[in-house]
Amino acid sequence: MRAAAAAATAAAYSLLTCSRLRRSSPTRLPSSLPLPLPVRRRHRPLAAMATAASLGPEAARSPSAVDPPAPPLSKFKVALCQISVTADKARNIARAREAIQAAAADGAKLVLLPEIWNGPYSNDSFPEYAEDIEAGGDAAPSFSMMSEVARSLQITLVGGSISERSGNKLYNTCCVFGSDGELKGKHRKIHLFDIDIPGKITFKESKTLTAGQDLTVVDTDVGRIGVGICYDIRFQELAMLYAARGAHLLCYPGAFNMTTGPLHWELLQRARATDNQLFVATCAPARDTSAGYVAWGHSTLVGPFGEVIATAEHEETTVIAEIDYSLIDQRRQFLPLQYQRRGDLYQLVDVQRSVSG
Amino acid sequence: MRAAAAAATAAAYSLLTCSRLRRSSPTRLPSSLPLPLPVRRRHRPLAAMATAASLGPEAARSPSAVDPPAPPLSKFKVALCQISVTADKARNIARAREAIQAAAADGAKLVLLPEIWNGPYSNDSFPEYAEDIEAGGDAAPSFSMMSEVARSLQITLVGGSISERSGNKLYNTCCVFGSDGELKGKHRKIHLFDIDIPGKITFKESKTLTAGQDLTVVDTDVGRIGVGICYDIRFQELAMLYAARGAHLLCYPGAFNMTTGPLHWELLQRARATDNQLFVATCAPARDTSAGYVAWGHSTLVGPFGEVIATAEHEETTVIAEIDYSLIDQRRQFLPLQYQRRGDLYQLVDVQRSVSG
Repeated sequence: MRAAAAAATAAAYSLLTCSRLRRSSPTRLPSSLPLPLPVRRRHRPLAAMATAASLGPEAARSPSAVDPPAPPLSKFKVALCQISVTADKARNIARAREAIQAAAADGAKLVLLPEIWNGPYSNDSFPEYAEDIEAGGDAAPSFSMMSEVARSLQITLVGGSISERSGNKLYNTCCVFGSDGELKGKHRKIHLFDIDIPGKITFKESKTLTAGQDLTVVDTDVGRIGVGICYDIRFQELAMLYAARGAHLLCYPGAFNMTTGPLHWELLQRARATDNQLFVATCAPARDTSAGYVAWGHSTLVGPFGEVIATAEHEETTVIAEIDYSLIDQRRQFLPLQYQRRGDLYQLVDVQRSVSG
Repeated sequence: MRAAAAAATAAAYSLLTCSRLRRSSPTRLPSSLPLPLPVRRRHRPLAAMATAASLGPEAARSPSAVDPPAPPLSKFKVALCQISVTADKARNIARAREAIQAAAADGAKLVLLPEIWNGPYSNDSFPEYAEDIEAGGDAAPSFSMMSEVARSLQITLVGGSISERSGNKLYNTCCVFGSDGELKGKHRKIHLFDIDIPGKITFKESKTLTAGQDLTVVDTDVGRIGVGICYDIRFQELAMLYAARGAHLLCYPGAFNMTTGPLHWELLQRARATDNQLFVATCAPARDTSAGYVAWGHSTLVGPFGEVIATAEHEETTVIAEIDYSLIDQRRQFLPLQYQRRGDLYQLVDVQRSVSG
């Protein structure tokens, strides 16, 4: 039964904050963690257990949070390419390429594209514009263009998202390319956009798309990046786990709409940045009021105090701004939240880190 | 060892979302949950475990989230008494009493007071103004006034906070009174305000205060209320657990300052309300620029879509606004986050519910 092992591991992690107990535990600490999985076992007496009060701030994340690694570049320009998107896929690919090239010419070392940038955002269009990323080449012209420009321009590219065909399934997928053009990570949207605000906005991505199964953290020349796509930003747990995995920056390609955009787009970005004390960058398509789904725009870069560093309105444009990761350390010294969490009261479990550790 | 039992329970909870496994488990589901506590046990083979993919949205909270109960009153007026606070304790008590009486006369069924409203917010003052709440009577004139007015006016009172002396310890404590004047709940600030922003604001509550050990959820005539005090609002986990415990409303008496106030006060309130789809009410003291600690003011009521329903500037005033809990259900239907969470990827454990269940 896995649960017992997980509990043992969890216990070991909690010991990291309890030196008395650690000294009495000569065995190597295992690295996996508490996963609520089936097990049958009689309850043991409470007297034998350590009290919850012995759990310190580290136990608030399970496994414990890790600090961001030293990034190859800690201060650099980022570009958010808020391109317009049409029904003409070849035109969209050309437009994206031009925007990326212009951004690189302006000195950007990291470039973001919007969510679903190679065709219309609609359930009808997802199958039509989908690409087979694993096949690559002509089966994936959007993917191939991104890889090629990342390599030729020597930039890190968070390639917004495109619909991806894999077997008989479709995903909303973000590809992250290193400055060598290699695919460093691929995030399939894990929270599908299924909402229904009567008279305002109704959409069900789950009609055509399948949700991804994995969190995505990518180590790049411009730091450790956690990736989410649009609706993923509503789930604070994802940002919290990325922070615990040592991310410097969260990138959310997104296409909020004319209802949820003004209500929540900037709020959610600022909240994720403030609560987790890291950078958040978003990239949306430019607004096309003739489209079936009208995007809010407002691509934005937020710093680790929740400050909006740079943003856009709804027109086609590229936001270029500077990221300075030294601010992360500074903000975390000012407000040392990571040492103030109450692991005796709450614990956020990263299930995949627990299982794979 | 407790961990095994906790893991077993956790496992049982995960079964709630996995009918095939549930059918094979004839035993009653235990109600406590996974707590990472010390245990030594050999790892078991992975093959025997259910896969993480079998964990549904319910598993994202452990124990599973409960819906808010039907409140006695679902639509009512709330008053946020942003009173001025001086060094004169008797005057502060009289001022608070007047504000509460005026609010009740205006129809408020729920009244909030600010953080540390009976004396200056300073480590020097906390011991001097502290009251022995358990002793009550003359040992606790602020406490006694609140109980008396709640009863005589038949209102629910979230009594901001006062410094509380208990044995040789001091706490920053919020008392919640029912409309019968009885103390329904007492929240001792669980995240002490220890921050250091050079040249801006440095404060260490931990110099004099002890952190509380418990989350505080109170069932009142005006719904289920989760209580935090000021810095507690920075820890999103607390709000998440209150939501999972079925709170309609989070009340945060608070006194953000002239640095963190403009940066984060409204942002954090709106984020907690939006992410957890419930109401958030805050109450701050009026600003006194001659005080050692200058408060930001801006007492605010936020609705479950993150909308600011009513707010104040920094002057002495009372914000009166309407709360309508039917909006909670509506917002949760529009954006059904509770059914979209990924319990196979993240799980937030409520340690106290796990242990006591």
